Amino acid sequence: MIKLIIDTAGGDHSPGAPVEAALNALRKNNDLYIIFTGDEALIKAEIEKNEPVDAGRYEIVHAPDVITGEEKPTDAIRFKPESSMMKGIKLLRTNEDIDGMVSTGATGSLVAAATVRIGRIPGVIRPVFCPIIPTVNGGICGVSDSGANIKCTADQLLQFSVMSRLYLEAVYDVKNPRIALLNVGTESEKGDSAHKDAYKLLGKVHGENFVGNMEGRGLLSGNYELIIADGFSGNIMVKTMEGTALELLKLLKKQIYSRMKYKIGAAFMKTMFVELREFMNYQNYGGSVLLGTEKIIVKGHGSSKALSIEKCIEQAVTMHDHNLNEQIERGIADIQEYMGVYTNND
Amino acid sequence: MIKLIIDTAGGDHSPGAPVEAALNALRKNNDLYIIFTGDEALIKAEIEKNEPVDAGRYEIVHAPDVITGEEKPTDAIRFKPESSMMKGIKLLRTNEDIDGMVSTGATGSLVAAATVRIGRIPGVIRPVFCPIIPTVNGGICGVSDSGANIKCTADQLLQFSVMSRLYLEAVYDVKNPRIALLNVGTESEKGDSAHKDAYKLLGKVHGENFVGNMEGRGLLSGNYELIIADGFSGNIMVKTMEGTALELLKLLKKQIYSRMKYKIGAAFMKTMFVELREFMNYQNYGGSVLLGTEKIIVKGHGSSKALSIEKCIEQAVTMHDHNLNEQIERGIADIQEYMGVYTNND
Repeated sequence: MIKLIIDTAGGDHSPGAPVEAALNALRKNNDLYIIFTGDEALIKAEIEKNEPVDAGRYEIVHAPDVITGEEKPTDAIRFKPESSMMKGIKLLRTNEDIDGMVSTGATGSLVAAATVRIGRIPGVIRPVFCPIIPTVNGGICGVSDSGANIKCTADQLLQFSVMSRLYLEAVYDVKNPRIALLNVGTESEKGDSAHKDAYKLLGKVHGENFVGNMEGRGLLSGNYELIIADGFSGNIMVKTMEGTALELLKLLKKQIYSRMKYKIGAAFMKTMFVELREFMNYQNYGGSVLLGTEKIIVKGHGSSKALSIEKCIEQAVTMHDHNLNEQIERGIADIQEYMGVYTNND
Repeated sequence: MIKLIIDTAGGDHSPGAPVEAALNALRKNNDLYIIFTGDEALIKAEIEKNEPVDAGRYEIVHAPDVITGEEKPTDAIRFKPESSMMKGIKLLRTNEDIDGMVSTGATGSLVAAATVRIGRIPGVIRPVFCPIIPTVNGGICGVSDSGANIKCTADQLLQFSVMSRLYLEAVYDVKNPRIALLNVGTESEKGDSAHKDAYKLLGKVHGENFVGNMEGRGLLSGNYELIIADGFSGNIMVKTMEGTALELLKLLKKQIYSRMKYKIGAAFMKTMFVELREFMNYQNYGGSVLLGTEKIIVKGHGSSKALSIEKCIEQAVTMHDHNLNEQIERGIADIQEYMGVYTNND
């Protein structure tokens, strides 16, 4: 049995999409139990719209408030206890039998609340945020960290690599990932002392799986399955990639509509453009996980529709079924001898 | 009269492209005098291939060594005094009447050598590297810093904004640029203390021209004319954008060749694809400048052909004609009262 909280507010398609996703997941997985947090009346109305599911397999916890992306995370945590997200975090913290939470709400507030309120797996210095990026050769690449930790020590970067590698293996069946460190050049002595030290640690722990430093331009190349980054530059890399892809697609579309002959040409290529859009569609890749907290936290993209949120739920279930957090606890214990060697973070 | 050094080695099309570019520039600008550094025989052979130019308007300084991108910058500076780049830097340092240098060689070595060997403009803490990025609305955006300074204080970030703003106005006629600070979110309290402090300083100095924090996804949007960044994240943003654009174009091409009907469609859109490629072609945007050194340094892309290097030379001439370095000296003096307020860089 796995018990998951579904935050029904804060996403672009809330509460419809999260409710529909959870009910679909319940129908497919008899081991699942769902706790909806959000506006009770709205959730009930959404449940009505869907094919019925045994009412004994879910419950609703009323939480009328919503946290928006504009809110300062520390304020959200302090002043919005009645929000669907904070109520969910509280339930997760106080109920040992609840395994995790899926949310499409404000990323900053979710990461902050989970980091502060949910305990860490023993030995973990800081949880890490690890989205999955599709690469141009049809593979995937995890980016860890991508925003939870603005400044990182070499020890933290090493822990990120261990947690994310276990995650990639458990959920995406990635064996022997090529692991790289995001830096401003490929030479080993690039970056500040945390990056230089992390370079050495990653080599010691991952051996040949650590392929060295990489630059921002390699993200989509398919040359790496796991990129280790401090949260500041990891966040900038992922968002720059998203923005560049979006802006270029917009430009392409604008150009096509500028001339009749381009429109004719585009008609021949319609299925190709659909495929390209699907390749870049985050809906197809589930959510970003927070690794290192005692409970499972999956953050779906704010624009997630039901199918994408269902994938987030599947991610949470797979993490649970693989006892990922126990694996992480053992993995972190195994690298204990490498920790604390470098303490200077410039 | 402006005297420029042309580093004829180290680029993908060296020495042909730099020699051709310099001769073209000499023909167009009677005020220009060129000093070629590189292998004398090779340079002479390239000069032979071009339309003749009065031999009194240029000279050749023999420098047989070449610095590659694989070399560690500190080693290049120390152990390759006979390279075209280091000989150029030495000439620049020791001859007051030489105004600047254009190179398509290794970026890291050029920035390091220029920073270490060429004096700074009075008041400047550190020189800044400022490439120009084309935006999807047909405009441009400077990114400052994008790799010269891995760690930056708020004072440095403020100086970058002053130097780059003057550069954008002098060379690209950008008046009233929208200036943003690269960060992991748009809220004012994002980032480490250097970014938080820089946020305040930029607001005080640039007033309404400072539009706040921006995320990586905004780079190509056309919403900003100048992005201020620490060198680490600025470098990652620019390279991620380049890599994403390249990988997506490659993917598009591969897709087009996968089916006959796509190829037919693409035939209708040929001029459009040429335009798109031109939009993303760095050859059209000249080089990246290093601002804050006492001499003008323009770094052309390693893949630059003659036309692109000619644009680099034009950039150097425009900077010289506008007395940019004197403007920068005054600009840095004008913000003296804001400096030294924040000294903590976490």
